[in-house]
Amino acid sequence: MEEKNFSIDPTTEALVIKAEKEGIETLWDRKKIMKTPCGFGEEGLCCRICAMGPCRISPTAGKGAQKGICGATADVIVARNLVRMIAGGLATHSDHGRDIAHVLHMAKRDGNYKIADEKKLLSLAKEWEVATENRDIYDIAHEVAEVALNEFGKPFGSLRLLERVPEQRKQVWDENKLKPGAIDKEIVTIMHSTHIGCCADAKDLVHKGMRASLADGWGGSMIGTEFSDILFGSPVPRETEANLGVLEEDQVNIIVHGHEPSLSEMIVLAVEDPELLQLAKEVGAKGINLSGMCCTANEVTMRHGVKIAGNFAQQELAVITGAVEAVIVDVQCIFPALSPLTKCYHTKFITTSPKAKISGATHIEFEEEKALASAKQIVKEAILNFKNRDKEKVFIPKTKSPAIVGYSVESIKSQLDKVVNSHIDPMGTLKPLADVIKAGVLRGAAGVVGCNNPKVKHDYGHIELMKELIKNDVIVVTTGCAAQAAAKAGLMSKEARKFAGKGLATVCELVDIPPVLHMGSCVDISRILMLVAELAEMLDVDMSALPVVGAAPEWMSEKAVSIGTYVVTSGIDTWLGVAPPVTGSAAVVDLLTNKAEAVVGARFYIEPDPYKAAQQMIERIEEKREALGLSLAEAEA
Amino acid sequence: MEEKNFSIDPTTEALVIKAEKEGIETLWDRKKIMKTPCGFGEEGLCCRICAMGPCRISPTAGKGAQKGICGATADVIVARNLVRMIAGGLATHSDHGRDIAHVLHMAKRDGNYKIADEKKLLSLAKEWEVATENRDIYDIAHEVAEVALNEFGKPFGSLRLLERVPEQRKQVWDENKLKPGAIDKEIVTIMHSTHIGCCADAKDLVHKGMRASLADGWGGSMIGTEFSDILFGSPVPRETEANLGVLEEDQVNIIVHGHEPSLSEMIVLAVEDPELLQLAKEVGAKGINLSGMCCTANEVTMRHGVKIAGNFAQQELAVITGAVEAVIVDVQCIFPALSPLTKCYHTKFITTSPKAKISGATHIEFEEEKALASAKQIVKEAILNFKNRDKEKVFIPKTKSPAIVGYSVESIKSQLDKVVNSHIDPMGTLKPLADVIKAGVLRGAAGVVGCNNPKVKHDYGHIELMKELIKNDVIVVTTGCAAQAAAKAGLMSKEARKFAGKGLATVCELVDIPPVLHMGSCVDISRILMLVAELAEMLDVDMSALPVVGAAPEWMSEKAVSIGTYVVTSGIDTWLGVAPPVTGSAAVVDLLTNKAEAVVGARFYIEPDPYKAAQQMIERIEEKREALGLSLAEAEA
Repeated sequence: MEEKNFSIDPTTEALVIKAEKEGIETLWDRKKIMKTPCGFGEEGLCCRICAMGPCRISPTAGKGAQKGICGATADVIVARNLVRMIAGGLATHSDHGRDIAHVLHMAKRDGNYKIADEKKLLSLAKEWEVATENRDIYDIAHEVAEVALNEFGKPFGSLRLLERVPEQRKQVWDENKLKPGAIDKEIVTIMHSTHIGCCADAKDLVHKGMRASLADGWGGSMIGTEFSDILFGSPVPRETEANLGVLEEDQVNIIVHGHEPSLSEMIVLAVEDPELLQLAKEVGAKGINLSGMCCTANEVTMRHGVKIAGNFAQQELAVITGAVEAVIVDVQCIFPALSPLTKCYHTKFITTSPKAKISGATHIEFEEEKALASAKQIVKEAILNFKNRDKEKVFIPKTKSPAIVGYSVESIKSQLDKVVNSHIDPMGTLKPLADVIKAGVLRGAAGVVGCNNPKVKHDYGHIELMKELIKNDVIVVTTGCAAQAAAKAGLMSKEARKFAGKGLATVCELVDIPPVLHMGSCVDISRILMLVAELAEMLDVDMSALPVVGAAPEWMSEKAVSIGTYVVTSGIDTWLGVAPPVTGSAAVVDLLTNKAEAVVGARFYIEPDPYKAAQQMIERIEEKREALGLSLAEAEA
Repeated sequence: MEEKNFSIDPTTEALVIKAEKEGIETLWDRKKIMKTPCGFGEEGLCCRICAMGPCRISPTAGKGAQKGICGATADVIVARNLVRMIAGGLATHSDHGRDIAHVLHMAKRDGNYKIADEKKLLSLAKEWEVATENRDIYDIAHEVAEVALNEFGKPFGSLRLLERVPEQRKQVWDENKLKPGAIDKEIVTIMHSTHIGCCADAKDLVHKGMRASLADGWGGSMIGTEFSDILFGSPVPRETEANLGVLEEDQVNIIVHGHEPSLSEMIVLAVEDPELLQLAKEVGAKGINLSGMCCTANEVTMRHGVKIAGNFAQQELAVITGAVEAVIVDVQCIFPALSPLTKCYHTKFITTSPKAKISGATHIEFEEEKALASAKQIVKEAILNFKNRDKEKVFIPKTKSPAIVGYSVESIKSQLDKVVNSHIDPMGTLKPLADVIKAGVLRGAAGVVGCNNPKVKHDYGHIELMKELIKNDVIVVTTGCAAQAAAKAGLMSKEARKFAGKGLATVCELVDIPPVLHMGSCVDISRILMLVAELAEMLDVDMSALPVVGAAPEWMSEKAVSIGTYVVTSGIDTWLGVAPPVTGSAAVVDLLTNKAEAVVGARFYIEPDPYKAAQQMIERIEEKREALGLSLAEAEA
């Protein structure tokens, strides 16, 4: 890497320099070697859906192909590619939610997986009309799990969790035929409609994408979140630390990386096993140091305070420290590059999911029936690998930041209870939040979420945007790699209120929260949806009327496309820091960034500059406040 | 078109010349304008799965990117792209099957949709353990339909129809974990496993593709076939005609094009409506002339003898005759090009499916509850359009060929009964077929199926291959656009036995069949599977042991990729005339064309030359015969 301007994270910079010296390639090297990306692909104008092509078209060039061989126009090709990205993202979250529901379905009082949050289970049972009286809690759990499992494939009806939105939003979805059916069926319909010679109407394709995306946020993802809370506990605020400085020179370092908490929860248990701790001592380590990467980190930090080693772009760097005995992964966002990379160090690279085998990795299938035993076996492998660590190669950057994590909707309400006069107002609601927004103490709220993408300086998109927002009294909630960026940058410590505007700083102090709230993993954006839905209910307005915005400054995955779409379809304007591959069709761009608003009350904005994005978001928040009669002028009057 | 060497079909050549004169573009013009296709795309080395790229890699070039930005190798990128094609094809057939099951679910004694084949329904009810005694046939139908609908999304267990294969094949699938779960779930699993950072093992990805593909052939497609037979009747042999010469100068010409018989069956009824026939006379037409394109044509010709206007590559040419009042379409394989093209003529272009709207077309949603009324409205539109026909522009080529169609497995058995001595052998089985194969009178059987693709001279791939096979005493069964090519080329007339070798000609004469049997639409390849399964059962061998082969000489769609894969996974070697986009990975090519055999007993062959392909197929048939102790030498001894 000649140019060192690729990250704002000091550990990243330091470890990339180490990699260079050791002749090791990283993400940024591969990005550089890739040179200019294919223009057709970047604009969405490449079609590989059938074998008559591939077709690449130049609709505005005046020469070359204006249409695909079948006659598909730029609008059609772009829209099909886009909604297939939604299908990919939705499928990924669907399968995650399904797996967690399967885990609940096999939970047993004396098994590896137990019920941790009975209250949440009973509340869901009530919502879904599953009988609870005089029943064993595990019987209830299994029936609730079966109801959930049928949400993925039921032949009739729309999704149960859609009922959670305020009436105004239901009406928007009803009027516009946006209510999805079974989760998997929505994916299949998209794959069908985008097949050669099927749907050739960009507007209708985008409509299908929007409908399907709701089956992510209000379906697969929400099931993932709810069932993870039931099984492993609903998060409450806890302290943790973030960044590669959490690795310990004198301990066995194990990193869990991926997404589904069914794996990582068992690893959390396994590293506390006395026999394994003893074994660690026997091999000369002072202990076992578990930390997480990507959404797996979010899952275990939210529930156990497990330290965050880093986000998506840092996964290789963890190995490059030379101090990691094992990287244990399940599904999604795992670089195939980890496989050859770990062979350059002593690190064991262990895959565990039948859905995500990786060539060259050690595959220890994580069988949920004997989950803890598998987890222990995996941890043992890591411990036994400690002796292979090459001390000459070890370099752990010192940087790490303290953070408070664990802000589920329930724990946000608990924090808000601190300012409730229980003689006047009910406890356990969002009313205090609604009140400070109405009063203008907070101008609004922003969800800043998403991935890392080497097209954006690492973490810069997230951090600059968040800082601008909190400075302007917009409270930030965050998940995924964005949350990890915030944790690393210190925005999740209580001291971070110094970066906040006066109103937000006051709220943070009174309610005892940081200005940027960690709400979990990417599937936990469903928590943000619920927060917004309840806030709208509280103010008796549609979700789109709220001074609430979303952003994904460094997104890269199909999941992010699905997420962005369900957020917009839920009525929340969303800013993207990276342009999706749609610029080849003015019609599709217009649908997403303009016309969507007339249908769902929100739209996409594409703005790579985080300062400009923040400005636009704040302006939009003010527009919404004004429409609600809450403009700053009025508030001050 | 300067070069006229793009089709062996005389109507095609003539109408392309007409198009040129009129300044109208066709498929072949667009193919030519596309010039050299993107090499990365053709080899499968382009990845657009996340937004860090697009990445295009040159693993063998020695310079440029060897891996994607995430580190995905050529093997991974190629395999992911391939299995996503399988997911696309499987989704398309899944959704088709599901829709037909929904139609049966709402069938009523006095409704638009009724039960036509009670025997088949009762047989399926028995197979699925649905109670039949003392029940109304419609109650049985609705329960059978519900069972089928649950096959798409059930949370547990594998597919019911997999039970139809011989024990030997079940064992292959069991041992290799190839039994799919719910149909839609298989698609979702593929979309998940191919997401950024998930599965990165080419072998495992191909395995997932193979498993999923079985949910097409033995799932969605088979449900499509079975339920269409129950609703609209199981095909029996009937006479028809094929090629654009079936259009009538003095009648209202209506073309049905697409796939699902739920639309076309109602159009078949509507064109026989006395009021509409009267209206046709009033507008000056001698009648209403219905013909079909693509698989819709196959569905209605198999059940009603409706004439075949042409196959995939001819859809534009039908409009270019200037004599077509309406092209009515539902889903799949419909050129978006038809929309601007029909505007150059008087032809109405009517879309009917919510899954496949097309910009610029007239959309008359085909609501299944009032299906016949919708169909009549659509036909009326066509009739009223007769007056707009520009006689100056009309040119209908004279060419058409007689054909016998309708060879369901049941009707093949009926034909075979002609040679059964009922004192010795049971009626209604495939035993006579097994006997002639054992005796060497037939050397074997070949399924020749698939699309048109402008990479291959239109129909040449199909026809030359079929001719070679029948000349060598290999009986050919066919579906889809391949079947239409055969019908147009006269291979489905009884006279075609003159092209057959002595053994096959004798069989054709005794059993009174043509040497090439039309078995239906692309979903009806499930009929071919059943034929092979029953034949294997009859001979008490695994399906892969039979002297049976498959070919898709001109394939182009994702459906074809899914079909080819389930055919191979069912133990039948398959020849492709067009290379799939996998050549960028030697490992994936090796898996498909070599290693697959050790797992499933069959593999892919890629051979564009139909003569060479025929030679290879015959050699393979002889190998299988030898292994069964049926080699020609032994048979003659």
